Amino acid sequence: MSREITMEKITALAKGRGFVYPGSEIYGGLANTWDYGPIGVELKNNVKKAWWKKFVQQSKYNVGLDAAILMNPKTWVASGHVGGFADPLIDCKSCKARFRADKLIEDYLKEQNLTDIAVDGWSNEKLEAFIKEKDIACPECSKSDFTGIRQFNLMFKTFQGVTEDSKAEIFLRPETAQGIFVNFKNVQRTSRKKIPFGIAQIGKSFRNEITPGNFTFRTREFEQMELEFFCKPGTDLEWFVYWKDYCVNFLKSLNMREEHIKLRDHEKEELSHYSNATTDIEYLFPFGWGELWGIADRTDFDLKQHIEHSGQEMNYVDPETNEKYVPYCIEPSLGADRVTLAFLVDAYDEEVLTDANGKEDIRVVLRFHPALAPFKAAVLPLAKKLAPIAQPIYEELTKYFMVDYDEAGSIGKRYRREDEIGTPFSICVDFDTEVDGCVTIRDRDTMEQVRIPVTEVRKYIEERLEF
Amino acid sequence: MSREITMEKITALAKGRGFVYPGSEIYGGLANTWDYGPIGVELKNNVKKAWWKKFVQQSKYNVGLDAAILMNPKTWVASGHVGGFADPLIDCKSCKARFRADKLIEDYLKEQNLTDIAVDGWSNEKLEAFIKEKDIACPECSKSDFTGIRQFNLMFKTFQGVTEDSKAEIFLRPETAQGIFVNFKNVQRTSRKKIPFGIAQIGKSFRNEITPGNFTFRTREFEQMELEFFCKPGTDLEWFVYWKDYCVNFLKSLNMREEHIKLRDHEKEELSHYSNATTDIEYLFPFGWGELWGIADRTDFDLKQHIEHSGQEMNYVDPETNEKYVPYCIEPSLGADRVTLAFLVDAYDEEVLTDANGKEDIRVVLRFHPALAPFKAAVLPLAKKLAPIAQPIYEELTKYFMVDYDEAGSIGKRYRREDEIGTPFSICVDFDTEVDGCVTIRDRDTMEQVRIPVTEVRKYIEERLEF
Repeated sequence: MSREITMEKITALAKGRGFVYPGSEIYGGLANTWDYGPIGVELKNNVKKAWWKKFVQQSKYNVGLDAAILMNPKTWVASGHVGGFADPLIDCKSCKARFRADKLIEDYLKEQNLTDIAVDGWSNEKLEAFIKEKDIACPECSKSDFTGIRQFNLMFKTFQGVTEDSKAEIFLRPETAQGIFVNFKNVQRTSRKKIPFGIAQIGKSFRNEITPGNFTFRTREFEQMELEFFCKPGTDLEWFVYWKDYCVNFLKSLNMREEHIKLRDHEKEELSHYSNATTDIEYLFPFGWGELWGIADRTDFDLKQHIEHSGQEMNYVDPETNEKYVPYCIEPSLGADRVTLAFLVDAYDEEVLTDANGKEDIRVVLRFHPALAPFKAAVLPLAKKLAPIAQPIYEELTKYFMVDYDEAGSIGKRYRREDEIGTPFSICVDFDTEVDGCVTIRDRDTMEQVRIPVTEVRKYIEERLEF
Repeated sequence: MSREITMEKITALAKGRGFVYPGSEIYGGLANTWDYGPIGVELKNNVKKAWWKKFVQQSKYNVGLDAAILMNPKTWVASGHVGGFADPLIDCKSCKARFRADKLIEDYLKEQNLTDIAVDGWSNEKLEAFIKEKDIACPECSKSDFTGIRQFNLMFKTFQGVTEDSKAEIFLRPETAQGIFVNFKNVQRTSRKKIPFGIAQIGKSFRNEITPGNFTFRTREFEQMELEFFCKPGTDLEWFVYWKDYCVNFLKSLNMREEHIKLRDHEKEELSHYSNATTDIEYLFPFGWGELWGIADRTDFDLKQHIEHSGQEMNYVDPETNEKYVPYCIEPSLGADRVTLAFLVDAYDEEVLTDANGKEDIRVVLRFHPALAPFKAAVLPLAKKLAPIAQPIYEELTKYFMVDYDEAGSIGKRYRREDEIGTPFSICVDFDTEVDGCVTIRDRDTMEQVRIPVTEVRKYIEERLEF
């Protein structure tokens, strides 16, 4: 990478080329919501397809699921979200600004360069005491006079049916995981899977975050790609390692740069009381390291909670040994928007080119793995009048993958436009094509060109999509 | 089709084989919510992929979008949903049961066999008067004493941020369409598309229906596949016909039976005031004809509403003629859950087989187009000890599409299990496979078998996935 990458550059490119627009922009937006444009929706869909391919289609252990966003509210009592899924909120008494107490401290620590203190897992009392002790000032008005902490539940609530009493109160799911747990028996019975096996799901979740931010990294509405992998108690730590490696290999197989990936094991005191182990895969964004993937050994906590609250039987009986047990569960949970952003940042490159006259020029190029690239190829007729030859090539290829067609402007300009949206192969149709039946394929990364018969283009590209 | 198809058979198969389970079932469910199981999620994903392929990938006119579910509430003022998206609700004074007035009348008319009266578009006054005139009885308690009609808004509302005052009140989108309209300019600018062009989107929407029902046909949470196609005013009726044909051809290309499809043009008085034409594509479900796809000529209504409410400029300037206009819009809007249910119903067949001894047997088979089938193939080793030969075949094929692997039970039983989930090709690995390098492929529909080399299996199947 030749030049510094900033979030400003990423968001400007994202908006300018149709990756991501601010949500409801014509009405002044809505608190960190984002819409994926024509190029972005293809990128995100490719990320989701790649995950499904590796975690469902190619895994002999896993099957898929797509549970509803609206669930019976008892689910969230059992899962602990009604009781405990809350952020510690404080108000500035002077200017009435509202903050998350832990974030307030984190920002303070960053400012003071005290980055070795980790706030995770602190009690409200400890947070309050620390704010008082350090006399932390309100970032808005600089006064140091805060209210006590109150817990703010992060679930969005709504009302179903024709009344608005508490009986009809339901929640937007804050995670996809519980849709899997409540279906454990249904899936096991109908898929006839034996332990160990996993259930994978992609879907939207909603959290009423007090401070969303960093572009699509933390949003109130977000998409998750979750696997709940059920195994025999005692084998859980082996499977924990298996899935941790599997996840890292997934990112690497799609060319995410190793130096931008870090594994962070949770310390004993950071772990939930039921967890045997948790590791975060973090990615180095322009704004610092951020969590991409949380891999947790959740033991039998979730299934036992649902057994207790539903009164249903969820034991698994080993068909060979007749042993009866509640399975343990490994949960690799990935944010689809986050990892899409990570792949976008990771692909972004600025290359300094020098022309024959020594003039410097910056080439912006997104070096996506071809499997993730929004368009796999672009058909570019050298002149508009070559359309009768170029369009049938375009139409044939669109049967198999996404292809762009561009006939406006010089061929050099069109190559650069394709570079900026990460199209790996540009197919130039020229005046010889009709004669020799060949086209020139220009490689996005090397800018090298090869001439191959039209009939071999599909195979040439499809071979390079594999990962 | 040999025997009668009922919704009971469909839901029983759906639950038993992992297509669709009742949502939150272990907690007694939640008002007509449904979860797609391992087989169902593949079916629905294939339907969505097929739509995207035909409406985005293979259409030279259209591009994709994925807008957020949570939008600035001004969107819903502009669209008319805050003011007018409501059902006419009445209560029985005697037993307090609550009904949609129009549904109450429709049910009454059905009972009386007065099927030529259409309630669509009636005013509240007309509905109230009709109920009184006919002395319609409460279906719960048989008394005929109702309250007046009050309008019940169908949007789910929730609260964003840390307060619950009306300032923070937002809605779950009741349709994906508005996410497209508010992005018209962003998409046009960044995709550099010229009129005519379309923007396609797949996503969840939410409507607080008073009477959801008929399995996954009408649910409060549902997924839409919408296209908004922008064209020059005056060309709209041509494009309306173009997209109507395109939609019907889509269904037919995936083998939906013609005799189960009906086009219903809306009468003049049924049309919205801004619509030039509307046609519904209906499907013959076991419970009767139901709307699958609504294709509407919405003129410039939506863009003009957003111009007025946002103050933004949304004219299109024709690059050749310099003409300036607000485009007209054709909207083909399809319910993903509905059309998935239609494909499931349409594929369902019961075949009466007679064995050598004259004994009759029913074969349940789902005759999905291979492109829609959850598994494209199943690898079935004749004996468990053939796994070392069968598993590499399975693993190789899973790189390209979804494949089942089943080694439990007699081969005949396993064929029947694959028939019930619609797997088009069963690949039997037998004791000769190691010797001759061939497998037997059994066709789901004809039950005929062909023997081909292992190296040709992938091509054999992929050729049959095209549509």
